[in-house]
Amino acid sequence: MTAETDRRFMALAIALGARGLGRVWPNPAVGCVIVQGARILGRGWTQAGGRPHAEPVALAQAGAGARGATVYVSLEPCSHHGKTPPCADALVAAGVARVVTALEDPDPRVSGRGHDRLRAAGIEVTTGVLAAEAEAMQAGFLSRIRHGRPMVTLKLATSFDGRIATASGESRWITGPEARHLVHAMRARHDAVLVGGGTLRADDPLLTVRGMGALRQPVRIVASAGLDLPLGRLAASVPEGPVWLLHGEGAPPAARAAWQAAGAQLLPVAQGGRGLDPAAMLLALGQAGLTRVFCEGGGQLAASLLAAALVDEVIGFTAGLALGAGGRPSLGPLPEGALVDAPRFTLVETRAVGGDVLHRWRRA
Amino acid sequence: MTAETDRRFMALAIALGARGLGRVWPNPAVGCVIVQGARILGRGWTQAGGRPHAEPVALAQAGAGARGATVYVSLEPCSHHGKTPPCADALVAAGVARVVTALEDPDPRVSGRGHDRLRAAGIEVTTGVLAAEAEAMQAGFLSRIRHGRPMVTLKLATSFDGRIATASGESRWITGPEARHLVHAMRARHDAVLVGGGTLRADDPLLTVRGMGALRQPVRIVASAGLDLPLGRLAASVPEGPVWLLHGEGAPPAARAAWQAAGAQLLPVAQGGRGLDPAAMLLALGQAGLTRVFCEGGGQLAASLLAAALVDEVIGFTAGLALGAGGRPSLGPLPEGALVDAPRFTLVETRAVGGDVLHRWRRA
Repeated sequence: MTAETDRRFMALAIALGARGLGRVWPNPAVGCVIVQGARILGRGWTQAGGRPHAEPVALAQAGAGARGATVYVSLEPCSHHGKTPPCADALVAAGVARVVTALEDPDPRVSGRGHDRLRAAGIEVTTGVLAAEAEAMQAGFLSRIRHGRPMVTLKLATSFDGRIATASGESRWITGPEARHLVHAMRARHDAVLVGGGTLRADDPLLTVRGMGALRQPVRIVASAGLDLPLGRLAASVPEGPVWLLHGEGAPPAARAAWQAAGAQLLPVAQGGRGLDPAAMLLALGQAGLTRVFCEGGGQLAASLLAAALVDEVIGFTAGLALGAGGRPSLGPLPEGALVDAPRFTLVETRAVGGDVLHRWRRA
Repeated sequence: MTAETDRRFMALAIALGARGLGRVWPNPAVGCVIVQGARILGRGWTQAGGRPHAEPVALAQAGAGARGATVYVSLEPCSHHGKTPPCADALVAAGVARVVTALEDPDPRVSGRGHDRLRAAGIEVTTGVLAAEAEAMQAGFLSRIRHGRPMVTLKLATSFDGRIATASGESRWITGPEARHLVHAMRARHDAVLVGGGTLRADDPLLTVRGMGALRQPVRIVASAGLDLPLGRLAASVPEGPVWLLHGEGAPPAARAAWQAAGAQLLPVAQGGRGLDPAAMLLALGQAGLTRVFCEGGGQLAASLLAAALVDEVIGFTAGLALGAGGRPSLGPLPEGALVDAPRFTLVETRAVGGDVLHRWRRA
């Protein structure tokens, strides 16, 4: 196989893996392709809920054809007995000749041992193919393993002067239907949607994925130090999908009890200067297994995450209207400092979505 | 000639006309192409300063070849004796067979009489070809003739939360060098650059076109009711290009005298609620001959123009950094109202410029 062929099949494996994003936590979203010469015999990706893994799905498809085949996997095959037997063992048992991976799995239970097991069985192993692309696709899982916290995507949908509502709080709608539909698709590719208490008090949003067909709903999370939240539409919708509440140790027992009675899960977190400590919040979410969190504001929560350098990606929608300085700002105050010290992001993509502008940025 | 051929040559005439934008006021930027069959014999556009017009330039190039030719002009040829003889007469004298135009000239001195003169001489006249495209290219001239005011392009270069400076006023630089270079190119395609007094007090910008080779400089205009402006870099740079000051009737005589001594031209304007009346300002600029004004803020001036529905186009640059609610807003307050009443614009274009996002909007 040429390096070019390896990259082509790995790109396919990464694309297949991406199908699991938002649906496989706490596991990584992995893709797998099994090839003999130019023929694809099996394709697999981590299934909803995180099991089965990509490799057994692809092996089952390939059947006896896997013997002597080359296998492309977007992440090192696992080597430990978890809720499923090790994928490395399954590949050995199937008699594959060569395994190509993009990344070593930094999970301490794997961390090179999957590759070792394959090599020990006489399988040729090539690693690091399309590593950057695989890192980007699996950024959430890697962040949880490396830093103990999920990756955070911050969405800002604003007027062209950066406002998210009029002075009186009216915000429906700033952006058009195409952008709002795309936001639902983005929610579906994250494990959880996160908002601050102010947003719940202002809008009581459902935060579910709608208009995308039947899907596993992302966890809906509200961060509110004092749990002073309306028991409204969100509380009533717990049967549609999980609701978690990040709150401070001092939140009133009555509020805790009411939300627990509604079926919400409570996650107590240390408090920082004003509100919850953002790093502690994300560590609690990582501990709970989340790998990808989609933060939709409000301005205080977004600013606290930005100030703590905890935002990995920003997705902006800019709409063609002006709200002026009286409108609600998309971000609360950041610590004062020189321009050179402002949180900076690198442009990944921009395009029109309906009548709005989408721009996507990664932490610089 | 087919309609498709007519559109093709008219598109060329419009593109040639656009070369004059920012350099031909108070005249329109017109383009002209002279064709025999598929051969282009002459190309012309309004020259810097507004003369000669496009048609005599193209006719001079075509020479005797103009006899029996088809002439494409982005605007109806003039029929009146101004500083140049009428272009309609020149086309008749050259013996052209057919004239195709995009628009009738709404200037009351022309207004169909150019077309009439051609028809009276037995020339076949087709009008309205690519009218919308010609309207867009000649929007500034048409605005001055129809509404007595120049078209206004508002530029906003902000962080992704819509801020133009840190809390302490630091603004160099929000956007990258590519975006800033493009702003100079945009200035060069406008007759004038306009800022509010606050911007001059904060930054004392030169507002000249730099890095574009030798060009006619746009007029640099500062709007300041009280003329409380620093006699700094801008004042010292009058020899590089004209400086005009829009001010209120109550501006101190000493300030007026000082700026006049520096070579600036004073334009007294009626005052509105807070500051100068924006409609009166633009009528004064239209009266002075301007057709295209590029407003670069600050927030108060931009908001007053938006509130008065006097902004025709918005050019936004979004940079990948966050400044937070303490940063300076790109727009001052707008009158409070429902979301549906906010000034709205339609997306024309979006693309990456260096590491920033450009978005261009037209009044909806």
